[in-house]
Amino acid sequence: MEIGFLGLGIMGKAMAMNLLRNGFKVTVWNRTLSKCNELVEHGALVGETPAVVVKKSKYTIAMLSDPSVALSVVFGENGVLGQICNGKGYIDMSTVDADTSTKISEAITSKGGYFLEAPVSGSKKPAEDGQLVILAAGEKALYDDAVPAFDVLGKKSFFLGKVGNGAKMKLVVNMIMGSMMNAFAEGLELADRSGLNPHTLLDVLDLGAVANPMFKLKGPSMIQNNYSPAFPLKHQQKDMRLALALGDENALSMPVAAAANEALKKARSMGLGDLDFSAVYETVRLLEPPS
Amino acid sequence: MEIGFLGLGIMGKAMAMNLLRNGFKVTVWNRTLSKCNELVEHGALVGETPAVVVKKSKYTIAMLSDPSVALSVVFGENGVLGQICNGKGYIDMSTVDADTSTKISEAITSKGGYFLEAPVSGSKKPAEDGQLVILAAGEKALYDDAVPAFDVLGKKSFFLGKVGNGAKMKLVVNMIMGSMMNAFAEGLELADRSGLNPHTLLDVLDLGAVANPMFKLKGPSMIQNNYSPAFPLKHQQKDMRLALALGDENALSMPVAAAANEALKKARSMGLGDLDFSAVYETVRLLEPPS
Amino acid sequence: MEIGFLGLGIMGKAMAMNLLRNGFKVTVWNRTLSKCNELVEHGALVGETPAVVVKKSKYTIAMLSDPSVALSVVFGENGVLGQICNGKGYIDMSTVDADTSTKISEAITSKGGYFLEAPVSGSKKPAEDGQLVILAAGEKALYDDAVPAFDVLGKKSFFLGKVGNGAKMKLVVNMIMGSMMNAFAEGLELADRSGLNPHTLLDVLDLGAVANPMFKLKGPSMIQNNYSPAFPLKHQQKDMRLALALGDENALSMPVAAAANEALKKARSMGLGDLDFSAVYETVRLLEPPS
Amino acid sequence: MEIGFLGLGIMGKAMAMNLLRNGFKVTVWNRTLSKCNELVEHGALVGETPAVVVKKSKYTIAMLSDPSVALSVVFGENGVLGQICNGKGYIDMSTVDADTSTKISEAITSKGGYFLEAPVSGSKKPAEDGQLVILAAGEKALYDDAVPAFDVLGKKSFFLGKVGNGAKMKLVVNMIMGSMMNAFAEGLELADRSGLNPHTLLDVLDLGAVANPMFKLKGPSMIQNNYSPAFPLKHQQKDMRLALALGDENALSMPVAAAANEALKKARSMGLGDLDFSAVYETVRLLEPPS
Repeated sequence: MEIGFLGLGIMGKAMAMNLLRNGFKVTVWNRTLSKCNELVEHGALVGETPAVVVKKSKYTIAMLSDPSVALSVVFGENGVLGQICNGKGYIDMSTVDADTSTKISEAITSKGGYFLEAPVSGSKKPAEDGQLVILAAGEKALYDDAVPAFDVLGKKSFFLGKVGNGAKMKLVVNMIMGSMMNAFAEGLELADRSGLNPHTLLDVLDLGAVANPMFKLKGPSMIQNNYSPAFPLKHQQKDMRLALALGDENALSMPVAAAANEALKKARSMGLGDLDFSAVYETVRLLEPPS
Repeated sequence: MEIGFLGLGIMGKAMAMNLLRNGFKVTVWNRTLSKCNELVEHGALVGETPAVVVKKSKYTIAMLSDPSVALSVVFGENGVLGQICNGKGYIDMSTVDADTSTKISEAITSKGGYFLEAPVSGSKKPAEDGQLVILAAGEKALYDDAVPAFDVLGKKSFFLGKVGNGAKMKLVVNMIMGSMMNAFAEGLELADRSGLNPHTLLDVLDLGAVANPMFKLKGPSMIQNNYSPAFPLKHQQKDMRLALALGDENALSMPVAAAANEALKKARSMGLGDLDFSAVYETVRLLEPPS
Repeated sequence: MEIGFLGLGIMGKAMAMNLLRNGFKVTVWNRTLSKCNELVEHGALVGETPAVVVKKSKYTIAMLSDPSVALSVVFGENGVLGQICNGKGYIDMSTVDADTSTKISEAITSKGGYFLEAPVSGSKKPAEDGQLVILAAGEKALYDDAVPAFDVLGKKSFFLGKVGNGAKMKLVVNMIMGSMMNAFAEGLELADRSGLNPHTLLDVLDLGAVANPMFKLKGPSMIQNNYSPAFPLKHQQKDMRLALALGDENALSMPVAAAANEALKKARSMGLGDLDFSAVYETVRLLEPPS
Repeated sequence: MEIGFLGLGIMGKAMAMNLLRNGFKVTVWNRTLSKCNELVEHGALVGETPAVVVKKSKYTIAMLSDPSVALSVVFGENGVLGQICNGKGYIDMSTVDADTSTKISEAITSKGGYFLEAPVSGSKKPAEDGQLVILAAGEKALYDDAVPAFDVLGKKSFFLGKVGNGAKMKLVVNMIMGSMMNAFAEGLELADRSGLNPHTLLDVLDLGAVANPMFKLKGPSMIQNNYSPAFPLKHQQKDMRLALALGDENALSMPVAAAANEALKKARSMGLGDLDFSAVYETVRLLEPPS
C-alpha cells in the first residue's frame, strides 16, 4: 500500500518508521528535508513538497507540530490542495483545534478528496511502540482504508463520526485527566501536611480502585518537585479551557473541572506554564505572599 | 496462633473465614451469636462475650459496623476492657473516626494492652479473596505480631506510625477517589451532550494514562443511571468533609476537593445519599427547576 | 449643539428624550422610522438613514440592541461609514463585544472620524432619569466634546483610555455582581434551611457593611421565586464567561467567579436562561433527581 | 433600670458607656477591675465579681472576648451561676459558638433564670455610636425587657427565636460577606491585569447596583496592600467553615462559599491569618512558586 507521510518530528518519525517496518511503501516529506534521510535508509521514498507526496499516494498522513503548520501544509505553495482530488485521502493526525480541522476538511472535500481527523492519545514512547490510541472522525470510507495503517501505529483506533468528534473526545479525556491531576496533587499535599509519607500514599493508591498509570508515573517526581515537561501545563490548561467552553455551549455545569482549571491558571500565573502539567502541585504547596 | 475476632458482618465473616482456612485458631464473637455457626463448622471456637474472646486470645481483631458499636464492644458490659491487659493486643479494623479511635486506644493502653487501628481499603470481594489493603497504625510490636494474619487478610499491609494515621490515610485516598468520581461524571456528561458515545469514552479512557478499576467498574452502570450502593454517597461525602476538615487544620486549600464535596452535598440534597457515590452523576445531568 | 442619535429602543428613546429636554438639537434615526414620531413632538429632527444623521451632526450617538445591528448600522447600505469623515465623531453606547467594538473603531478612524465606545451601567429607569453610569473609551477629544451630553444622560461618566477598556470595565463590574448574586442566593437558602426567616436576613443585611441596592431590590422577589427578567441570566452568564476569558488571557485565577459561573450554567441547563439572573437561586434550592 | 454589665474590652466599655449616658443604672465588672474606673466617673457602680453584679441587677449583659472567657464567667468561682435565679436575666452579647451558647443557656435556665444570646454585627465605631445590629435569640420575655437597652446600644435589634438562631444569623451574614470579599478581590485584580485603574473600578462600583460600605471602606487600602486587621482573616475563615458545616447539616450545596473558603485557607497557609480578611486579595495576586 502506498502511503504519504508529512511531518517527521518526534512523533511523526516514529510513526513513519513503524509503517516502513510493517511493509508499507511510504513517501515522506519534512520541512527540513534532511530529516528524511534516516527513513530513506529504511526504504522510504522522499517527496519534495506536500503536493508531490499527495500525488504519489492513495492517502497521506500528516503529523504536524501545530495548527499554523497544519494549515500551511495544506493551503501553502505546493501544498496538499494542489494535488488532492477524487479518490485520494488526507488524514490529519496532528492535534489541532476544531476551527483548523474544519477549514482543512472543507478544503479537502471541496476538491473531491476524503478527509479524516485522527488525533492521538499517547506521546513519544507509545508512538515508537505502535501503542497510540487513535481518535478518528470524518469520512468512514477513508477510515476503513486506513485501518491497516492504524493497526500498525496504535493499539486501538476509534471511528467517532463526523469531523470534530476526534478533537472533542480528546478534550473530554484531557479534562478528566486535568481534574484528576489536581485531585492527586491535593491528596499528596494533604498526606504530607498531615504527617503521612507521600510515598506510602502512592503505594496505597496503586493497590486500590483508583490505581492508574498517571499517578504511578508522575507521583514520585512530583514528590521531588521535578516537573520535566511531558505534557506542558499551559497545554493542559488550554484543553481544560476548551473543554469548559464545550460545556458552556451545551449549558453543562462542571464545577470540578472549573476549579481544576483555575488552579492550572494559578500555576500559569506563577510562571509554571512550560513545565509538566503535574506542576499544578506547586499551587497547593505552601506559598509566600507577594512582596 | 490464637486470635480473637469480633464482628461477623459481611466483611468480618469473610475475614475470619480466611484466617481459619489458613490455619489460625480463631475464637469468634458476634452480637447475634447464631452468626458464629458457619464459622464453627470451619473450626472456630465461640466466645460468649467480647471479654471472653479477649481472655482466650493473644490478640483480638474487631470488624464492626460503626463507631457506636466499636465503642460499646470495648466499653460496654463484658466488653474488651474487662480482660485486656499487659501482653494482649486489640486491633480495630473497623472504619471509625479519629475521636473514636483515640478513645479506644487510650482505654486499651491504660490497661497495659497494645492497640492498633487498621482500617481497610476494599469491600466484600477483596475481603473474601484476602485482597484487602490494610492501613495499620499504633503499636508497632502488635503490628509485627499481626503480620501473619494481615498477610492472609490482605494483599498488602502498611504500618503508618501513630494512632490516627490509618484513618487519615484512608481519608486522603477517599478524597482523591471522590474528586475523581466527580471528574469522571462531568466527563461522561460532556461526552454525551457533545454528541459522543459515552461507552466509547469508557473504551478510550481504559486505554490511556488514567485507566483505573473504578472507571471500568462504575462507568457502564452510571451510563444506565444504575447506582446500587457499594459505597454509599453519604459516606463518601462524609469522608470528603472530614478530609477537608483535616486540610483546614493544616491551613491547606483544596479547591477541587471542595468543589467535589459541594456536588456530593447537592446529591444528598436530591435524596441520593443512600445510593452509590457514583450517583453524583445525577447532579451533572439535566435538572428541572423546583416547582 | 447638534447631535445625531441612532436607535430608539427602550434605552435609546429615553436617552434621546433627555438630550432634547436639555436643549440639544438632536437628529434621530430608527430602523422603524415611525418610532421617531414621539421625539419629533419634542423637537427632534429625523434622518432617513444613519448616513444622513451623521452628515448633519458633529457627532452621533448609537444605542443599538446587539452587535449585529451595531455592525450593520455602520457597515450597511446608507450606513455611518458613508458620511463619517475628518472632524466627525461616532459614539457607540451599545453593549457589544470587544471584536465588534474594534471593527467599528478601525473603520471609523480609517475614514478620519473619531470613535468612542461608551457602554453604560444601568437600565430603563436610570436611562429615563439621566442616571446612567457611562464607561467611555477611545478618542479623548471626542470624549471631551461629548461631556455635556454625557452629563445629561448619566450621573457620572468615566474616560477609561483606549478602545476596549469600556467593555472590559463593564465585564469586571458584572463579574463581581454575578458572584455576589450567587453568594446572596446561597445565604438566603442557608437561612431558610437553618430555620431563619429569609426576610429577616434581608433586614439584617441591609443594616450592615454589605448593604447594597441589588440585595434590597432582588431579595424580596427571590424569596417568592419571582424572577421577571431585568437582566437575563443568560446574559449574566455570558459576561461571567467573558470575564473569565479575560482572566485567562492574563493568567489570572478567579475561583469564586468560576464557581459562580458554573452555577449560572447549571441554571441555564435548567431552562432558566431567559429569567432574571437572580434565578440562579433555583440552583441552590432543593432539586429532584432527573427521571 | 438596673442593669449589670460584664466585660469592659473595646466593645464592652463603649456599650456600657452608652447605657450610662442614656440614664441606665449600671453595675459593671471586669477581670481587671481598674478598667471600671472610667465608667465609675460616669456614674457606674462596680461589682467585685460576676456573682455580685448578677445579684444586684434585674438582668446582666456580658460582652466577653471569647468562648473560654464566656464560660468561665458563668461557671467559674463567683460566677454568674451563683446568683442567677428566678426572675433574673442573662444576656450574652459575645460572639461564641453554638455549643458554648447552648451550655450557658442550659445552665442559666436550669437555675430558673432567663437567657438570651445576642451577638452583634458591627465593631468599635458602631459600638461607640450606638449603631450596632443586635441578633437576639432565646427567651422572648427577656428580650422584651431588654429592648430599652438594645435601643441605646444598637440601631436595630432582632428577636430571632430559639437559642442558636442569633449565632446562625451571624454566620449567614458573614458567609455572604466572605464570598463578596473574594469576588471583590478577584475583580480588583482582573481590572489591574487588564490595564484598568483599580481606583476607577471602585468609583464605578460605588455608583452602581452593588455599591456597599465594605467595598468603599476596604477597596482603597486593599489597592495599597494594606490590611490592618479590623476583622482578622482567620476569624472570617472560621465563620466560613462553620457556615459550610451548617450547610452540610442541611444537605445544602454552596459552591461559591466553598470556593471562597478555600481561598481564605490559602491565605492562612500564606501566613496572613492575623491580617484583615481583605488580605485574601493576596491570593489572587501574582505569586512565586515555592523554592
